[in-house]
Amino acid sequence: MSAFRKFLPLFDRVLVERLVAETVTKGGIMLPEKSQGKVLQATVMAVGPGARNKNGELQPVNVKVGEKVLLPEYGGTKVDLDDKEYYLFREGDILGKYVD
Amino acid sequence: MSAFRKFLPLFDRVLVERLVAETVTKGGIMLPEKSQGKVLQATVMAVGPGARNKNGELQPVNVKVGEKVLLPEYGGTKVDLDDKEYYLFREGDILGKYVD
Amino acid sequence: MSAFRKFLPLFDRVLVERLVAETVTKGGIMLPEKSQGKVLQATVMAVGPGARNKNGELQPVNVKVGEKVLLPEYGGTKVDLDDKEYYLFREGDILGKYVD
Amino acid sequence: MSAFRKFLPLFDRVLVERLVAETVTKGGIMLPEKSQGKVLQATVMAVGPGARNKNGELQPVNVKVGEKVLLPEYGGTKVDLDDKEYYLFREGDILGKYVD
Amino acid sequence: MSAFRKFLPLFDRVLVERLVAETVTKGGIMLPEKSQGKVLQATVMAVGPGARNKNGELQPVNVKVGEKVLLPEYGGTKVDLDDKEYYLFREGDILGKYVD
Amino acid sequence: MSAFRKFLPLFDRVLVERLVAETVTKGGIMLPEKSQGKVLQATVMAVGPGARNKNGELQPVNVKVGEKVLLPEYGGTKVDLDDKEYYLFREGDILGKYVD
Amino acid sequence: MSAFRKFLPLFDRVLVERLVAETVTKGGIMLPEKSQGKVLQATVMAVGPGARNKNGELQPVNVKVGEKVLLPEYGGTKVDLDDKEYYLFREGDILGKYVD
Repeated sequence: MSAFRKFLPLFDRVLVERLVAETVTKGGIMLPEKSQGKVLQATVMAVGPGARNKNGELQPVNVKVGEKVLLPEYGGTKVDLDDKEYYLFREGDILGKYVD
Repeated sequence: MSAFRKFLPLFDRVLVERLVAETVTKGGIMLPEKSQGKVLQATVMAVGPGARNKNGELQPVNVKVGEKVLLPEYGGTKVDLDDKEYYLFREGDILGKYVD
Repeated sequence: MSAFRKFLPLFDRVLVERLVAETVTKGGIMLPEKSQGKVLQATVMAVGPGARNKNGELQPVNVKVGEKVLLPEYGGTKVDLDDKEYYLFREGDILGKYVD
Repeated sequence: MSAFRKFLPLFDRVLVERLVAETVTKGGIMLPEKSQGKVLQATVMAVGPGARNKNGELQPVNVKVGEKVLLPEYGGTKVDLDDKEYYLFREGDILGKYVD
Repeated sequence: MSAFRKFLPLFDRVLVERLVAETVTKGGIMLPEKSQGKVLQATVMAVGPGARNKNGELQPVNVKVGEKVLLPEYGGTKVDLDDKEYYLFREGDILGKYVD
Repeated sequence: MSAFRKFLPLFDRVLVERLVAETVTKGGIMLPEKSQGKVLQATVMAVGPGARNKNGELQPVNVKVGEKVLLPEYGGTKVDLDDKEYYLFREGDILGKYVD
Repeated sequence: MSAFRKFLPLFDRVLVERLVAETVTKGGIMLPEKSQGKVLQATVMAVGPGARNKNGELQPVNVKVGEKVLLPEYGGTKVDLDDKEYYLFREGDILGKYVD
């Protein structure tokens, strides 16, 4: 996980890694790519320090490293770090998170 | 209802479940899908902590879990949680609520 | 009027009922639909608690239930409550009101 | 003038009545409609209480009932009150006024 | 100059009169209209009281009656006062002024 | 340089004079116009008093008369003063300056 | 590095130099230009003093000279300084930085 310790998003950006799509059904049948659907769940890998409000105060990001979040279907910026594929989202575009 | 305890919308987002469309008339006749109309009433299942105003203060959401609300005809983001279909709306897009 | 006691618009929305168009002239002749014109006068049936200003303070709505208002020709959201047709307008879109 | 006592514009709206176009020259010759030009001068008939600034304070309107104002060539909303034709303008769209 | 004493621009509007284009060269040859160019210099004839800032405070206009200003090539509103042609500009659209 | 003492840009506008394009190579060969490129370096000739921030306070311009600046490839308003060609830029559009 | 000591970006602009694309594989085989990909990593060469917030206070830039940053795929302004190619980005467009 050295990549995440090294990469720090700026402002209110959040670096996430999408969960792996299930390519095999519970019964063991391989799924063709088309029926796998778009994976919208992701794990937070790194968060920026937050954006500043109109008074110049830092507004910390509302998600933490390790949390599972729900992404919107569109948006985000694909970034390659250490040959792995991650996505950067502005905090405000993340729909919600999964809590215990 | 475990899904809602687990999913927490971010900011001023509200997770709702649309009411089920009536598919049978009071007299017992089945309605074809076309005449069922779009269901705009929904039940609030989860609410975010609220958005922050220009001074950085949290502005709590004005609807509560369990309340019945009226949705606009368009808008909202469909999300699938535990194989059920829900919708996320920004609080400001919800038209009103039903109170006793 | 149970519908209005039950439905509460959110923010600065105003629920109005348009006045009935006159379909018969004073002399008793029925008017074809085309010459009836669009009814822009309406009665306020319910008002939201108001929007919040930049400081987060609630700004109460400037029209009250029962007041007669003038609507713009376009805009507003049609809503059906108890099988009757109403309209929702943002307070700022209402042109004016009739006072004694 | 009962119509104006009765109708109160909302926010920073201003109700005006356009001056009558001259349809006869000083020499007594009738002008065809085309050469009459668009009448941009108007009399203020009613003003709203003003819009609120970012701090929520009411900002009174800068024109008064009875003042003569210059309208922009386009814009404004035509309203019919007591079968007479008036126009509503946002205060900020009125170009200027005539003072003694 | 009675027209200017009578007409008061609203907000941060500035009434200007464009300088007269030179239609004759220094050597006395008449210039065809095409080679006269667009006159961008103008004299300030009247200024509004200024716009209000976000705190509701009046921000006086930065040009004064009688000053020579440079206008942008496009924009402004032509107004006819006493059969003479003037232009109204928002203060912020005026490019600069000529000082001694 | 009388033109610059006379012309004062308004608000945060900056009057610049583009550096002269080199039309001859160091070796003495004349360059065709096409290979001369667009000159983006300029000298500041006059600056406005600055724009006002949301509190109405004057924000002085960050470049001074005589400084060399880098212009963006597009934008700016060409103005002719005393038959010489200058450009007006909003301070915020100037990319940077050259310091010793 | 005299160019960077001399050029100072204005406001929240950041001058960066893109890392050199690898044109030879580790095994020594030359890569055709197409397979080299777009270089999104860059080194900060100079930073502006920062933009001002709504209260007029300077908000220092969050990256420092010498830091490695990740650029978005599109955007930025190419500038030539001393015959070398650099890019200017608004601080807010830089995606993140690499820290130890």
